[in-house]
Amino acid sequence: MKDYIKIDEWKIIEEGFDPHVHKVSESIFSLGNGRMGQRANFEEAYSGESLLGNYVAGVYYPDKTRVGWWKNGYPEYFAKVLNAANWVGIDVQLDGEQLDLAKCEVSEFRRELNMKDGYLKRNFTAKTASGKIVEVEAIRFCSMADDETGAIKYSIKPINFSGELTITPSIDGDVKNQDSNYDEKFWDEVSKEAKQDGGYVQMRTKKTGFEVATGMKFNLTLDGNAAEIIAEPIDKEKYVGTVVKLKAGEGQTVTLYKYAANLSSQNHPSDQLAELTYAVLDKISAKGFDTMMAEQAEAWAKKWELNDIIIDGDVSAQQAIRFNIFQLNQTYTGEDDRLNIGPKGFTGEKYGGSTYWDTEAYCVPFYLSTAEQRVTRNLLLYRYKQLGKAIENAALLGFKNGAALYPMVTMDGTECHNEWEITFEEIHRNGAIAFAIYNYVRYTGDEAYLADYGLEVLLAIARFWSQRVNWSEDKQQYVMLGVTGPNEYENNINNNWYTSTLAVWCMEYALEVIEKVKSIDNAKYEALVAKINFDIITEGERFKHIIANMYLPYDEKQQIFLQQDGYLDKEQILVKDLPATDRPINQKWSWDRILRSCYIKQADVLQGIYFFEDQYDIDTIKRNFDYYEPRTVHESSLSPCVHSILAAKLGDEKRAYEFYLRTSRLDLDDYNNDTEDGCHITSMAGTWMSVVEGFGGMRMREDKLSFQPFLPEKWASFSFHIGFRGITIKVTVSKDGVKVQNLSDQNIDLLVYGKEQTVAGGAEGIFAN
Amino acid sequence: MKDYIKIDEWKIIEEGFDPHVHKVSESIFSLGNGRMGQRANFEEAYSGESLLGNYVAGVYYPDKTRVGWWKNGYPEYFAKVLNAANWVGIDVQLDGEQLDLAKCEVSEFRRELNMKDGYLKRNFTAKTASGKIVEVEAIRFCSMADDETGAIKYSIKPINFSGELTITPSIDGDVKNQDSNYDEKFWDEVSKEAKQDGGYVQMRTKKTGFEVATGMKFNLTLDGNAAEIIAEPIDKEKYVGTVVKLKAGEGQTVTLYKYAANLSSQNHPSDQLAELTYAVLDKISAKGFDTMMAEQAEAWAKKWELNDIIIDGDVSAQQAIRFNIFQLNQTYTGEDDRLNIGPKGFTGEKYGGSTYWDTEAYCVPFYLSTAEQRVTRNLLLYRYKQLGKAIENAALLGFKNGAALYPMVTMDGTECHNEWEITFEEIHRNGAIAFAIYNYVRYTGDEAYLADYGLEVLLAIARFWSQRVNWSEDKQQYVMLGVTGPNEYENNINNNWYTSTLAVWCMEYALEVIEKVKSIDNAKYEALVAKINFDIITEGERFKHIIANMYLPYDEKQQIFLQQDGYLDKEQILVKDLPATDRPINQKWSWDRILRSCYIKQADVLQGIYFFEDQYDIDTIKRNFDYYEPRTVHESSLSPCVHSILAAKLGDEKRAYEFYLRTSRLDLDDYNNDTEDGCHITSMAGTWMSVVEGFGGMRMREDKLSFQPFLPEKWASFSFHIGFRGITIKVTVSKDGVKVQNLSDQNIDLLVYGKEQTVAGGAEGIFAN
Repeated sequence: MKDYIKIDEWKIIEEGFDPHVHKVSESIFSLGNGRMGQRANFEEAYSGESLLGNYVAGVYYPDKTRVGWWKNGYPEYFAKVLNAANWVGIDVQLDGEQLDLAKCEVSEFRRELNMKDGYLKRNFTAKTASGKIVEVEAIRFCSMADDETGAIKYSIKPINFSGELTITPSIDGDVKNQDSNYDEKFWDEVSKEAKQDGGYVQMRTKKTGFEVATGMKFNLTLDGNAAEIIAEPIDKEKYVGTVVKLKAGEGQTVTLYKYAANLSSQNHPSDQLAELTYAVLDKISAKGFDTMMAEQAEAWAKKWELNDIIIDGDVSAQQAIRFNIFQLNQTYTGEDDRLNIGPKGFTGEKYGGSTYWDTEAYCVPFYLSTAEQRVTRNLLLYRYKQLGKAIENAALLGFKNGAALYPMVTMDGTECHNEWEITFEEIHRNGAIAFAIYNYVRYTGDEAYLADYGLEVLLAIARFWSQRVNWSEDKQQYVMLGVTGPNEYENNINNNWYTSTLAVWCMEYALEVIEKVKSIDNAKYEALVAKINFDIITEGERFKHIIANMYLPYDEKQQIFLQQDGYLDKEQILVKDLPATDRPINQKWSWDRILRSCYIKQADVLQGIYFFEDQYDIDTIKRNFDYYEPRTVHESSLSPCVHSILAAKLGDEKRAYEFYLRTSRLDLDDYNNDTEDGCHITSMAGTWMSVVEGFGGMRMREDKLSFQPFLPEKWASFSFHIGFRGITIKVTVSKDGVKVQNLSDQNIDLLVYGKEQTVAGGAEGIFAN
Repeated sequence: MKDYIKIDEWKIIEEGFDPHVHKVSESIFSLGNGRMGQRANFEEAYSGESLLGNYVAGVYYPDKTRVGWWKNGYPEYFAKVLNAANWVGIDVQLDGEQLDLAKCEVSEFRRELNMKDGYLKRNFTAKTASGKIVEVEAIRFCSMADDETGAIKYSIKPINFSGELTITPSIDGDVKNQDSNYDEKFWDEVSKEAKQDGGYVQMRTKKTGFEVATGMKFNLTLDGNAAEIIAEPIDKEKYVGTVVKLKAGEGQTVTLYKYAANLSSQNHPSDQLAELTYAVLDKISAKGFDTMMAEQAEAWAKKWELNDIIIDGDVSAQQAIRFNIFQLNQTYTGEDDRLNIGPKGFTGEKYGGSTYWDTEAYCVPFYLSTAEQRVTRNLLLYRYKQLGKAIENAALLGFKNGAALYPMVTMDGTECHNEWEITFEEIHRNGAIAFAIYNYVRYTGDEAYLADYGLEVLLAIARFWSQRVNWSEDKQQYVMLGVTGPNEYENNINNNWYTSTLAVWCMEYALEVIEKVKSIDNAKYEALVAKINFDIITEGERFKHIIANMYLPYDEKQQIFLQQDGYLDKEQILVKDLPATDRPINQKWSWDRILRSCYIKQADVLQGIYFFEDQYDIDTIKRNFDYYEPRTVHESSLSPCVHSILAAKLGDEKRAYEFYLRTSRLDLDDYNNDTEDGCHITSMAGTWMSVVEGFGGMRMREDKLSFQPFLPEKWASFSFHIGFRGITIKVTVSKDGVKVQNLSDQNIDLLVYGKEQTVAGGAEGIFAN
């Protein structure tokens, strides 16, 4: 754990240059706008340790799978988040001496991520080996207002010398992925041009054939005025740059404005990319850096209006929650239903793929409440569009008749993951996708979605479950063998309570939605049935028979749901009784020892109780929580939020807050020593859930928002914004009770502490428990 | 399946040249002498498909592990059987035109493996592109009499031309492993010399630093007389050769005698290797090819005396069983306790490592009965010497206090395998190692071995089991969680009956041997206890408590041992009811589907019953056989032999014979389409077991050999040799009953069909059922 980040309400601040944390900072200070993004690599050359990263959403490379031992059914490719052309590069030479912070004496170093206005600013003073001192300020952002663009303002001031500065802004496409399985480069050059005032490189991905043109246009000023320069365009393989030379006197400031554009063949014809890139560059450079920055601030202000959580009395918590919300918004904006939420967003390569069940289980609640309805709808449509591939994937594993198994990790719907116990067995992901449909419709009331898209997905998933279970002659019930639950510290287990419960629910919900769709639009229902050849008699009856006869492991003695068959055979030593030196067990123990142990990586039974809370009385929840919590090591960042929400539900405010703390500053404090690989984007949604669903006690009840909040002891108050069916409310929880401000002009009916309340448009209500 | 091999009692014969089966033949016609061996690569250049393979026993390379997803505890290296310098190469040019069968019209091609005398002979007539016709005969062998040497006699006769022959015998060390994980070469050159009449290359393995000098010495004759030649030594990296030119007239025969030696730093000082190699070459070349061949025939005659199985009335079966015995003898001679029996012997690279549990479970019975006592003793000592590494390996996984887990795959005792469900969980291998000690002592009566070595191993293994089980509060018994049994179509299961049964037996046997050793030599016992810090009070009591309270899954209803917890939850469709298109399931089904199914890859419960047959009454054996056999797909070559032996025991002669057939010609007929990778050496021991323990019904009973034979319907008779405590007997089973010939001068007491019989030295007895 590192804690060098300075505390501030709206900013992430690093002071002083420490190369040992540079890769961590590169992750934390990452920028993104949903379409493209980048790690906080330095603009100028840096010979120290760094992980270069520029990413274009939806552009990926199917890297040939690497396995130790091949298993039938493994996918041949793993779609990698693709390191793309670096557009931030600005090489600087001072009288021929390269500016490289790894070789300078650095002082006054400060990095600042301004989350309110959405930009990254860096200042430093560097003294080169020859003794030249310069002050530098670099400001850059990825534009939220125009998501194919970005801009940099890079200022250099010679402090103790006058001389020639050589400044080379560039576009460098000669990059590679650190996680390349066979050390290959993934891009070919298509075309390029280096010009006096800019240039572009257009590249094409091998195999997938995505083309991306990355261009720049720049201008320089000396003390704010047009500078006299000599510019020489240069190019190399996949690279263009312009070598600019100019004289600068001691104390004068040279400023380079570099405008960048990233246009992809996903959105434009390949043969027009270069031309269109130039057009975009002309447009934004004409607009100018300051105007772009103003637009950026405005765009972020709009986001914060819907998104902000304000914590009074705890600046560290305030900073953390805003950082999480900021990164989620940088990662996904919901503008494009081909995109999704990668586990590292635009902050690193690791894990590849862009879509895990994290999206449905953790991110959907966040976007439902903080973004317009279409944002979550697009996340759902992404899966709808990949239904064909999910059916193919299931067929590959031997399933039939339109059964769908969504992939564990994917970019385009094809399974990428290749670890049999996960790829083939962590099938509960299918349930999360169904649950997200339910969650979306429950929250938005958009039942039309079910008829248009939802039911088709639900039936394909229900078909999968109905084939995945088998009748046990021994138990005279249906069983589900060979699965891995959310707790990945168990593999290939039988009758995982969570997975089986979810499977039953999926079939129940599919049947319920059939009736719903019939009642809304029977013609659509009939068309769907014909399209997918669904037989309500045989298939529907099978669903019902499974629902009525599914085996769900239960311990009568302790009256708890059993995580899986045989769980009680394990040695039951509680986490608190484990020596500290044994933790985290995923670093200290061999894999087999972990598997044999009773320790739970992340909420499993409790995840199911969280999903289906209404089905269980409070005593049941408490018994299960009291049993499983002491056995959970939370070695997944997705775990504590669920425990936090349940602890809050059970009135255990202290522990609800403790669980919240575990992930709230996960990346800012580099809690797991892995932030250098990128930030844990999807778990950030879990932190939001802890605050809103945990402390705020927000639920959907009786088709209304319901709140059951409490105020963490250390906080003076907290407030959050919630969008609900076109209405935005601000909920403030303080010692005085709960204040609900209705920021729209429509009335809203709510439940607060279980009582029905109405807050008129523009009005506010204050409610005590 | 291919069946191009001609049937012959003593020879393996291929007629006609078919490049498509060349790699299969390269495996089948492999040569070896326990110390070195090679695939049947052509001497002359061959540009067609081929897998080059020359191997030196015990010389390996720890190739960097390749994994998809790293798990804690994985070994970093995988010891590869190392492709070593090729000493068979003899390049031939006819008036400058290269002889290459891939580019010639080939007729009269015949390959013959003479198993009686232990050599490989190849004849062919080739017509080159330019129309030159030559007849060639090549004879070679790896000497059993002098296991660092080999020799080749290579004769060329121009048929339709007179001209210049250029013949280049060579030693080529510039080889690589096809299975190299990162496409690296594993050898560095140390020194070399090319001479007029021979030369050598000395190489050193990277990382492990083994050095091997491979040398040659040759001479040529023309029609049997010394030939007039021009010889020019040449060398390249890791290569030496001598370009020999001579004139040969139409119909004249040029014969090259090439003597080879392979000396390793395992057996000689590195700095003397070259000198010693020359000395060996001088010795064998002085001796001459014909003398060496005579010695070879003599050495093999001795082997066959102890080894041969004679089947009357079925030449195909006769050929097959001799092939299996021949390959086993080529692979392991028992001369060196640092060596072991690789699954592919000297016939291919695949699987790496040299030692699997195959050695103890399948090969030990073969060597016990067909070789001198010290051969099996050396196999046991191999494990004894690696006990330290086995303790380290267990410690790596969290075990303590001298508990040992022998590796799944190894060369030097270090675990090489990296597939968690096997590496960490297929721990029954530990039991097979204990069982081999029991089997050896039971067979040989060598109880001193227990005091000197056996008990130390047994206690370390018993300690492992005692730590590997845990007390289940739920069951109030000990359980063993997270294992993979011999049936690798189940992974990470709980309470595998076989593994748990074996674990209990290991602890029982360790306690029994403690008493035995105490009674033989109490001082040795006390010394051992002190050395390994064994506490008979606490540890011994724990063993006893586990033995008394171990949970072994059992189905009361069907009265069968349950392969593992939950086995009865599976869909029970018998193998015979599976569509043929679904088999073999390891090629047709995804891995998860295989895991969920009830299908058994190889004998699991039945393996346990085979080991501990005396503990179960015949009805129990029959119930379990009748239950598990129909669920077994035998997709391991190690499976059918056990079923064959049990079927024989149950009196089901027809099926005993059917199971025997499944593996008897596995490689000769390339049954699984994988013989090109090498032969299935260890399963060959299983075939021997089917004949001797199955058809011959041989067992140890009351400290005596016991026979309960039957004659397979298709055979007129069969006989086998058995060595037992210094006595060799020949057992012949025919329609007339069982004839036991005592080939030694001591009396032997036997049980035949359950009755005590004595056969005097030099006498014979005939017994009927």
